[in-house]
Amino acid sequence: MKNPYEIQIPALDARMMEAAETRQLSLAKPPRSLGVLEEISVRFAGMTGKLYNEAKRRRILIFSADNGVVEEGVTSAPQSVTLAQTINFTRGLTGVAVLAKHYRTELRVYDVGVNAEFSQPGVINCKIAMGTRNLAVEPAMTREQALRAIEIGFAAAEQAKRDGVEILGIGEMGIGNTTTSSAILSCLLNRPAEETTGRGGGVNDAGFARKKEVIDGAIALHRPDPSDVVDVLAKVGGFDVAAMCGAFLGAAANRLPVVIDGYISAVAALCAKRINRDSLNYMFASHISCERGYALAMEDMGLKPMFQLEMRLGEGSGCPIAFEVIDGALTVLRDMATFDEARIDDGYLGEIRGDAHLQR
Amino acid sequence: MKNPYEIQIPALDARMMEAAETRQLSLAKPPRSLGVLEEISVRFAGMTGKLYNEAKRRRILIFSADNGVVEEGVTSAPQSVTLAQTINFTRGLTGVAVLAKHYRTELRVYDVGVNAEFSQPGVINCKIAMGTRNLAVEPAMTREQALRAIEIGFAAAEQAKRDGVEILGIGEMGIGNTTTSSAILSCLLNRPAEETTGRGGGVNDAGFARKKEVIDGAIALHRPDPSDVVDVLAKVGGFDVAAMCGAFLGAAANRLPVVIDGYISAVAALCAKRINRDSLNYMFASHISCERGYALAMEDMGLKPMFQLEMRLGEGSGCPIAFEVIDGALTVLRDMATFDEARIDDGYLGEIRGDAHLQR
Repeated sequence: MKNPYEIQIPALDARMMEAAETRQLSLAKPPRSLGVLEEISVRFAGMTGKLYNEAKRRRILIFSADNGVVEEGVTSAPQSVTLAQTINFTRGLTGVAVLAKHYRTELRVYDVGVNAEFSQPGVINCKIAMGTRNLAVEPAMTREQALRAIEIGFAAAEQAKRDGVEILGIGEMGIGNTTTSSAILSCLLNRPAEETTGRGGGVNDAGFARKKEVIDGAIALHRPDPSDVVDVLAKVGGFDVAAMCGAFLGAAANRLPVVIDGYISAVAALCAKRINRDSLNYMFASHISCERGYALAMEDMGLKPMFQLEMRLGEGSGCPIAFEVIDGALTVLRDMATFDEARIDDGYLGEIRGDAHLQR
Repeated sequence: MKNPYEIQIPALDARMMEAAETRQLSLAKPPRSLGVLEEISVRFAGMTGKLYNEAKRRRILIFSADNGVVEEGVTSAPQSVTLAQTINFTRGLTGVAVLAKHYRTELRVYDVGVNAEFSQPGVINCKIAMGTRNLAVEPAMTREQALRAIEIGFAAAEQAKRDGVEILGIGEMGIGNTTTSSAILSCLLNRPAEETTGRGGGVNDAGFARKKEVIDGAIALHRPDPSDVVDVLAKVGGFDVAAMCGAFLGAAANRLPVVIDGYISAVAALCAKRINRDSLNYMFASHISCERGYALAMEDMGLKPMFQLEMRLGEGSGCPIAFEVIDGALTVLRDMATFDEARIDDGYLGEIRGDAHLQR
C-alpha cells in the first residue's frame, strides 16, 4: 500500500444482497418490521458475499498517539494521559477494555506516536514519532509520515482479516485528538471551527475559545488542500486519525465489515470515504456521539447510527454494543422462520397461509 | 392483588443511587462520558438496592389475546395469526424467539384470550375469554375481566422475581392490538385517533381510515373515564394490554427492573404509570418504535429510548437488545478502574495523578 488513492475496494455482492433481501421478505413478520436489523443483514451479505454470516469474532483496533497541539492549552487533561490509558487498555481497566471483555471482543493496541519511550506487553510498537508537531505553528507531520500512518492502519485491518476476524471496530487514544479531528472536519467540509468543534473531554471556556482559534488559524496558515486528504491529515491531523483512516480503507479492501465508534472515528471514516468512496460500503455507524461535529460527519457519509446513549468517551467504546446488535441481526436472517415454515396446520383454526403476511 | 390502585411500590434506594453516582464519577473517564450507560447503572442500583448488579437472568413475558374489533376490518392479517404466532413462540420461530435465544433470554408465553381452544407445551393457559368483544359496538370486556387480566400480568412478574430473574421484558401478540392501544392512548391523552394511530402491521388505506373512525367512535360511544385506567382498558382495551399493564406494576412492586418494547408495550407502561406513578421508576425504554403514537407515550412518561432501529414488530423483540446494553452498563460500574486504580506510576513519565480526570 504505497498510494492510498490507488487502493482497490471490491464492489458489494449485489446478487447476495438481493438473496438476503428476498429471504428477509419471506420471513414470518410484516415486511421490513425489523427495520435496521434487516438492512444490516442485507448489507453484511453484500460485504462478505455470503448469505449467512456471523459477527462472533470481534476486534477493536486502538491507535494511540500524541498531538503537539496540546502546547496550546486546548485540552483539559495532560498529555501523559495518552500513555497512561494506552497501558491501561492492556490491563483491562479502561471503558473500552471493560466493554470489550463483556461483549467478547479482542483489543489490539497500536502505538503510532505516543510521546514516550516505553514497552508494554500488548501494545504494538509502530511509533512514527514522539507525537506530532504543534499544528498551530507548523504542519503536524510530513506527507511521508501521514502515508506511513495510513499504511499502518491498513495493515492492521488486513491482519485482522487474516486472523479470521468477522467484524472490526476502530478506536483511538490521544490527548488533543478532538482538536485535530475538528481541524480535519473544518477543512474537508469547508466550515469554520465554530461549526465543527466541541469541548472534547470537557475543556474550560478559555481552552474552548483557544481551540477554535487554533483550528481556524492552522487552516489559514497551512492551507491544506481539501481534495487531498493526505495533505489535510499531514498538516492538521494526527497519527491516530491517519492510522484509523487507513484501517477503514484496509477493512474495505479486504471485505471486512467495520464499525465507526464516536467523533474521532467518524472523522477518520470520512477521510477514508474521501480517499475512496467505496470504503463507505463496508462501514456501520454505531452510536450518536455527543461531540459537536459528529452529526456533520454522519450527514456527509449518509450513515445511520444505531443507538443514542449520549456517549463521548471514544477509545472505540461504542463498537462492542454495535457488534452485539449486528450479530443479532445476522441471526434473525438465518434462524427466523419463513411464512411457509411458520404455517400452523394443526386443525385448531385450519391452515394459516404463508401469504397471510402475519400483520397486525 | 385485588385493587390495582392499592398496589404498594417501594421507593428507589436513594442512598444506593448516590453510591453508584459517586463511583461513576470516580471511574477513569471524563465525567458522564458514558452517558446513558452511567444513568442505567445508577437507576438499576436504586431499583435493586444493591450497588453492583447483573442482568444475566433475563425473561420476556408475552401476553397473547384476540381482539373482537378485527371484525371492523382494521387489520391486514387475519385473526388466526394470533394463534399461529403464539404457538410459534414456543417453537423458536418468531422474531422475538430468535432474538431471545441469541441474547440468552427466556420467553414465557401467556394465553390471556386467544380465540381458540388449544393446548401447546410452553403456552401458559390463563385464558379470560375467547378474545374481547368488538369495541366498535360494545365494551371490549367487563371491569372484572380487566382486573383479572391485570392480576394475571402482576402474578407473572411476581413469579419472575421468585424465579431469580434479574431483568424483565414485556411483549405481546394479538391481531388488532395497535387499534386497542391507540384507543387507550387517545383516551388517556385526550387526543383524536388522527394523532395516535398508525398502520400497525401495514393496513391499507381503507382499513387505516376505518381504524381511526372506529377508535374515535368507540371513545364517543363508551365514554371511558381517563382518570380510571381500568375503565379505559375494559371499554377500549385488550386482554393483552391489560395483562402487560399488570406486569409492569408487578415488576415495580417487586423491585424488578423492566424493559418496554415497542408501541403496545409503551401504552401498557403508560397505563401502569397512570395507575401508580412510581411504577415508572422501574422501567427502561428500549427502542424508538416506528408506530405512530409511540413518541406520545414516551413523552408522557419522560423516558429515553436507547436505540433507533426502525423496528415495529412487537412481540417483545426490542427487549433482548436492551438487556445486552443494560448488562454492559452494569459491568462498567463494577469493572472499570477508578482514577486511583488507573494511575500509572511506572517511571516513564512520572506519576499520572488520579485527579487528572483523563480528559481529552
